[in-house]
Amino acid sequence: MSKAADSILKHLKVRRQKQRAILKMRCQCAKGGLEFEQLDTFYRAIRPYLCVAQLFGIMPVSNILSRDPQDVKFKVRSIGLGVTGIFLILGGLKTLMGANLLFNAGLNAKNMVGLVFLIVGIVNWLNFVGFARSWSQIMLPWSSLDILMLFPPYKRCKRSLRSRVNIVVLTVFCFAIGDHILYYASGYISYSMHIRQCQTNHSRITFGHYLEKEFSDIMVLLPCNMFSICYGFWLNGSFTVLWNFMDIFIVITSIGLSQRFQQFADRVLALEGRHVPDALWYDIRRDHIRLCELTSLVDDSMSSIVFVSCANNVYVICNQALAIFTKLRHPINYVYFWYSLIFLLARTGLVFMTGSRIHDASLLPLRSLYMVPNGDWTQEVQRFASQLTSEFVGLSGYRLYYLTRKSLFGILATLVTYELMLLQLDAKSHKDLRCA
Amino acid sequence: MSKAADSILKHLKVRRQKQRAILKMRCQCAKGGLEFEQLDTFYRAIRPYLCVAQLFGIMPVSNILSRDPQDVKFKVRSIGLGVTGIFLILGGLKTLMGANLLFNAGLNAKNMVGLVFLIVGIVNWLNFVGFARSWSQIMLPWSSLDILMLFPPYKRCKRSLRSRVNIVVLTVFCFAIGDHILYYASGYISYSMHIRQCQTNHSRITFGHYLEKEFSDIMVLLPCNMFSICYGFWLNGSFTVLWNFMDIFIVITSIGLSQRFQQFADRVLALEGRHVPDALWYDIRRDHIRLCELTSLVDDSMSSIVFVSCANNVYVICNQALAIFTKLRHPINYVYFWYSLIFLLARTGLVFMTGSRIHDASLLPLRSLYMVPNGDWTQEVQRFASQLTSEFVGLSGYRLYYLTRKSLFGILATLVTYELMLLQLDAKSHKDLRCA
Amino acid sequence: MSKAADSILKHLKVRRQKQRAILKMRCQCAKGGLEFEQLDTFYRAIRPYLCVAQLFGIMPVSNILSRDPQDVKFKVRSIGLGVTGIFLILGGLKTLMGANLLFNAGLNAKNMVGLVFLIVGIVNWLNFVGFARSWSQIMLPWSSLDILMLFPPYKRCKRSLRSRVNIVVLTVFCFAIGDHILYYASGYISYSMHIRQCQTNHSRITFGHYLEKEFSDIMVLLPCNMFSICYGFWLNGSFTVLWNFMDIFIVITSIGLSQRFQQFADRVLALEGRHVPDALWYDIRRDHIRLCELTSLVDDSMSSIVFVSCANNVYVICNQALAIFTKLRHPINYVYFWYSLIFLLARTGLVFMTGSRIHDASLLPLRSLYMVPNGDWTQEVQRFASQLTSEFVGLSGYRLYYLTRKSLFGILATLVTYELMLLQLDAKSHKDLRCA
Amino acid sequence: MSKAADSILKHLKVRRQKQRAILKMRCQCAKGGLEFEQLDTFYRAIRPYLCVAQLFGIMPVSNILSRDPQDVKFKVRSIGLGVTGIFLILGGLKTLMGANLLFNAGLNAKNMVGLVFLIVGIVNWLNFVGFARSWSQIMLPWSSLDILMLFPPYKRCKRSLRSRVNIVVLTVFCFAIGDHILYYASGYISYSMHIRQCQTNHSRITFGHYLEKEFSDIMVLLPCNMFSICYGFWLNGSFTVLWNFMDIFIVITSIGLSQRFQQFADRVLALEGRHVPDALWYDIRRDHIRLCELTSLVDDSMSSIVFVSCANNVYVICNQALAIFTKLRHPINYVYFWYSLIFLLARTGLVFMTGSRIHDASLLPLRSLYMVPNGDWTQEVQRFASQLTSEFVGLSGYRLYYLTRKSLFGILATLVTYELMLLQLDAKSHKDLRCA
Repeated sequence: MSKAADSILKHLKVRRQKQRAILKMRCQCAKGGLEFEQLDTFYRAIRPYLCVAQLFGIMPVSNILSRDPQDVKFKVRSIGLGVTGIFLILGGLKTLMGANLLFNAGLNAKNMVGLVFLIVGIVNWLNFVGFARSWSQIMLPWSSLDILMLFPPYKRCKRSLRSRVNIVVLTVFCFAIGDHILYYASGYISYSMHIRQCQTNHSRITFGHYLEKEFSDIMVLLPCNMFSICYGFWLNGSFTVLWNFMDIFIVITSIGLSQRFQQFADRVLALEGRHVPDALWYDIRRDHIRLCELTSLVDDSMSSIVFVSCANNVYVICNQALAIFTKLRHPINYVYFWYSLIFLLARTGLVFMTGSRIHDASLLPLRSLYMVPNGDWTQEVQRFASQLTSEFVGLSGYRLYYLTRKSLFGILATLVTYELMLLQLDAKSHKDLRCA
Repeated sequence: MSKAADSILKHLKVRRQKQRAILKMRCQCAKGGLEFEQLDTFYRAIRPYLCVAQLFGIMPVSNILSRDPQDVKFKVRSIGLGVTGIFLILGGLKTLMGANLLFNAGLNAKNMVGLVFLIVGIVNWLNFVGFARSWSQIMLPWSSLDILMLFPPYKRCKRSLRSRVNIVVLTVFCFAIGDHILYYASGYISYSMHIRQCQTNHSRITFGHYLEKEFSDIMVLLPCNMFSICYGFWLNGSFTVLWNFMDIFIVITSIGLSQRFQQFADRVLALEGRHVPDALWYDIRRDHIRLCELTSLVDDSMSSIVFVSCANNVYVICNQALAIFTKLRHPINYVYFWYSLIFLLARTGLVFMTGSRIHDASLLPLRSLYMVPNGDWTQEVQRFASQLTSEFVGLSGYRLYYLTRKSLFGILATLVTYELMLLQLDAKSHKDLRCA
Repeated sequence: MSKAADSILKHLKVRRQKQRAILKMRCQCAKGGLEFEQLDTFYRAIRPYLCVAQLFGIMPVSNILSRDPQDVKFKVRSIGLGVTGIFLILGGLKTLMGANLLFNAGLNAKNMVGLVFLIVGIVNWLNFVGFARSWSQIMLPWSSLDILMLFPPYKRCKRSLRSRVNIVVLTVFCFAIGDHILYYASGYISYSMHIRQCQTNHSRITFGHYLEKEFSDIMVLLPCNMFSICYGFWLNGSFTVLWNFMDIFIVITSIGLSQRFQQFADRVLALEGRHVPDALWYDIRRDHIRLCELTSLVDDSMSSIVFVSCANNVYVICNQALAIFTKLRHPINYVYFWYSLIFLLARTGLVFMTGSRIHDASLLPLRSLYMVPNGDWTQEVQRFASQLTSEFVGLSGYRLYYLTRKSLFGILATLVTYELMLLQLDAKSHKDLRCA
Repeated sequence: MSKAADSILKHLKVRRQKQRAILKMRCQCAKGGLEFEQLDTFYRAIRPYLCVAQLFGIMPVSNILSRDPQDVKFKVRSIGLGVTGIFLILGGLKTLMGANLLFNAGLNAKNMVGLVFLIVGIVNWLNFVGFARSWSQIMLPWSSLDILMLFPPYKRCKRSLRSRVNIVVLTVFCFAIGDHILYYASGYISYSMHIRQCQTNHSRITFGHYLEKEFSDIMVLLPCNMFSICYGFWLNGSFTVLWNFMDIFIVITSIGLSQRFQQFADRVLALEGRHVPDALWYDIRRDHIRLCELTSLVDDSMSSIVFVSCANNVYVICNQALAIFTKLRHPINYVYFWYSLIFLLARTGLVFMTGSRIHDASLLPLRSLYMVPNGDWTQEVQRFASQLTSEFVGLSGYRLYYLTRKSLFGILATLVTYELMLLQLDAKSHKDLRCA
């Protein structure tokens, strides 16, 4: 068998050299930005969103406008990092002032939410800086894998990666904008109703006065004018964008990875019923290892983002669930409350569902292997089969938990248990009130 | 070995062609509805219940009276879907009016139950419409598998599938009718006692007046007469039937699948102690793959039904458990409360236990494989053994959880923990009362 | 290889026939009760405790005094079942009267404990009747396996099964008697102190008067005299014996099974470093299958006992934990409370730890297999290795949970979480009192 | 194949004899303490900390100053055990007096913490005595393995084990000293503020008077002078050192083990792409078995320490979490509270993260095995691969739970759920206050 193996290895070596040559050529073509741009790579799909993110100081990599992933690197002296720095300073200032107000008034479960929102924002900017540093180490192997899998023997997917990403991101962003507008609307109407009931001077019921109160932490330092209101809007918006981008980024990455695993499974499926030489199986197994290595590389770098995203989402959901039985004053408050709760639940679900698809897709070739006829069931195939099941492939939060359906169910179950307790306490207090 | 494998494959091809021919013939016979009707297929077992379900707008497939599963298809323009539409409109109207009443009075943990019951009903009608759409894709492979497994080498089970299903369904329905009657009885006696105590005018203590109050949401739109009371009864009953049918449907499907896995295991067991050629093992393995594929096909289509069923059952159980230490007024209330709680627990347990039997039965052949003598332990057997353990086979709720004994235990444990908390709070409040 | 396998099978057949002959001979010897009695079988170890149990109507099998396990069978018309019947009637009467008292006074978390204790007792008598019915089906294969494993190539254990069982049972029973005495002592002192404080007539402070109150449910039907007090003691004691016996029975069975697995592992270990022919491996593997089959047979019959035992223990522990921060009146109450809580925890722990030893012992041979040199690593060894890890071996409660360390940890964790909640509520109420 | 295997075994035997000769020689060299001291063994790394621990009566092994691990044994008649005895007596006295005070005042959730702290201390001293008894049985195989892995073919790590351990231990100890100082500072300021507000006699506000109150349990027996205050400091400090040492000891052991697994994985990685004979794979597999055996030996002896450490840490964290929303009086109280909570969380996290690294490192060679070319994929490699995944390698608390990331996540999740409940109750009581 040793001879056969040698010949296979030689064969593979030749093939691999050919592939490298093709890759090199393609990359050179890509340098001109002409052909490469037409390929449906992950880089092409995520680039527009990275450009938008740059405006908010997220992911400060330089040369983001370039069409060649090799140009995009993290540089300490760059405009991107400067923008991030400004956001960190201004956001940090806002956070410190918020914290100061809170500690003076006394920290409690209710008012802590706002502060946590700000701190999570700051932590996220730093997390994305950290991710930007490892960006070039991730994007180069990813792009080369992308190029490899966009040509035969791999088939292209029906829907391009780009269009999939676009659909998901645009949907989420539309809902996020709705959420943000409802936030101001709900706040303004609460404010105006409050004034109307308590004060005789109704002249204060303008949107401007409401914003003055909303951005009171900023107005301490700045005079109250058009500029400072815009500044307040912009800073608030940036935090919200960051919060949404965090989840969207995980979703995009998951889609990018799971599509490749899907393509891989399709290739294995296409071999069903045909005689496959060992050398080809070895080739396939190599590609699988490369895919797994890429995934674990991405997982290592994204762990902090995944961890903070999930922890924050669960915290906010639980916090919202607190208020589920409190009576709200105005219909708009109800609308905002339920809209934002459902939006949040849907977004968290989306993160976990797309995340779990990586693992699900990585297991797909197993079924095809069952159908390999006995004569073709060589050691190579056996190794491939055992390799498929031996390791978990997917994104995780510091490997404390994985983005799987099971984890999502765990969160849901905890949430339901928690909500049940609230139900019970609510029923109890109703009974107490009736007794008293 | 390659030659041997080739010959095996040829042999198999011939066999398979024969099988196909037999199948085709049998199906043609079945067209006449004569012979096919006598076979103990899953379709024959479930058909009467589907017919009954049609009357309540559940599973709107057309040609349900036909004895040939190929005729039963989902059609947009059919009487079944029309009936479903009527139910959806009338049920939706009832739900909206209930919701309106509730939001005016203020939503709380206690009064939410009724609304959830109605919403779950509406969702279920839609779920069953969804399932009806994939009905023909499921029933065709299932029927062909049924036909395959009703002839040698597979042995028939001692008890026919039909009688098993009938026993389970009739038992559940009897208890469900008892539950429904007790509901009205408990309500009527509470009502009459309430009137007797509070009012001097005892003339209102009639069943008619009670129903008037019970169906007050309907009486808003309709005049109060015999017809509208019947209408109220009928709509209420439909929701209850739907609720029970959801669980029964899962139970029937589980029985149908687990019986086939049981037969499969029996066949493997029968080979114990005999020399089995590789070709036969391959044949067996193919059948196993077909069974697994059928199960995963059914699982994909039924996920939504399983998910809603379990979520709803757990919710209602927890909600009932809330009231376990509240003092009820009349003995009939106690009887209804405990009857419905135990009925619900038993039904939920039944769903999980029959569901878990699919997986348990799918693992049964493993024991027989241990006894295969060493000389017959070929690669084919090894692959079969590893195939048996590699994947989970069974029904699930969107793969968030599976219908297994372990899941049931998880639910029970959560319930017990929850009940313990109630115990504790109850003991506390008793102590408080004593102190005060 | 087929030839080799044939010769092995022949060889095995001969061996097996020899073994059967030996077994038959030994069993015939055993018929005289002479030699068999000297063997360290499980039957010999458990027999004295079964005899004692018969006096309390537990495990009503006939001919329990016989030294031959084949004589011991379940008979409907036997003295044992008659005794059980008397206990069921008297116990049922006590339970009904207790339930009647409770429902009149209003069921709550606190007073439910006594009733649950009685109901669990009744259920257990029925469970043991069920187990007695399958006793002979279990004991015959077990005894033949015992005989097989008490002769070479298996080595005897250093400590005999009988002495192990005796030590554990006697220890538990001593503590149980202490618990029972403390129960009366604590009750009597509470009673006498209560009388001393509230009433001037101190003549009622005698043990007799206390018992009159303690057995008030019996005194309703019987006149209060020496006989009825003895009757009360005896019935109360029987329930307590049953409750302890339930746990002890599981422990004895676990010890009996785990010792056999341990012996099996020792045999495999003794082969380390030696050349082992395939035929011997096959022999060993057969013995392993027999052991596993015996365990699953026992598990099927004992599931109900294991389930009720664990459920009841956890319930009582949680209930006791409720009272951990309530102030008790007298030191003897503290002593009794902590003694019984720790005794209960230790007993539950013992059940799980001995139960988990079956599984742990069943995995022991795996390590020896790692050391098998490469030349001897045949298919037979490989199958043995995969067989060892493929299935769970041990006792379970209807396979909803298994008696493992992990389950014990789950219970402990739930208990701790629950206790933490109590801690928190206790701290809160202290704070509230301070505020008020 | 049998011949080939024989020759391999012979080859291995020769090699092994060589290795033993080298080992023996090295050990003899080590006797002189010259060369051995220069080796980066685990013994060298932990020795200074064991010396320090001896001063506090922890790990009473004799001859700890010797450079040869063979000299270090547990002796009943030794100075170390005498010191431990003194600590046990003095600590036990303090504990008894504390318990006495507590039971008189009434045990509750709040004041129990101090007593638990003392009892855990006593239990730990006894645990370490137990561990010291098995010290020599652990250290001899460990040292021989260390010597084996410090020479080729194993590569040394970049950072020596000693420096790694030193960095971790010193960091933890610095924070621990900060914690201890803050404890006294927070206590003193609370005390002085309390006196200032309540009493007119401000002369009592000295550090001496504070200590008098702090060590009131000691002052009952001893006169209040410089000596008794020092004694109080020293005893308090000893308990704190013990508490920290417990965690640090687990961390050091984990680092020691995981570094060896890491080296092992590096060796396997270095073989990638080269032709590896079966004999070498066998050699590697033997080393892996030795490593696993060492780990399970250490785990058996350390289980009690791991169990008490984790149980205690979780208890204290949950207890601290109780007070998270209580208003504290002075800023120093806030500083101490948050400092000690975060320190505790970080320490617990450190224990679990270093503990989990053993398992993670033990799985590392698996990836290298995937890359073994098909020609070299022999049975030996296959066995190695299956061996890597078949068993859990790592430290555990009586195998009830393992030190893994998953367990840490479980703790975090429980903590968060618990904290959420507190959040909810806090929010509720705020609302209640607003209502009243």
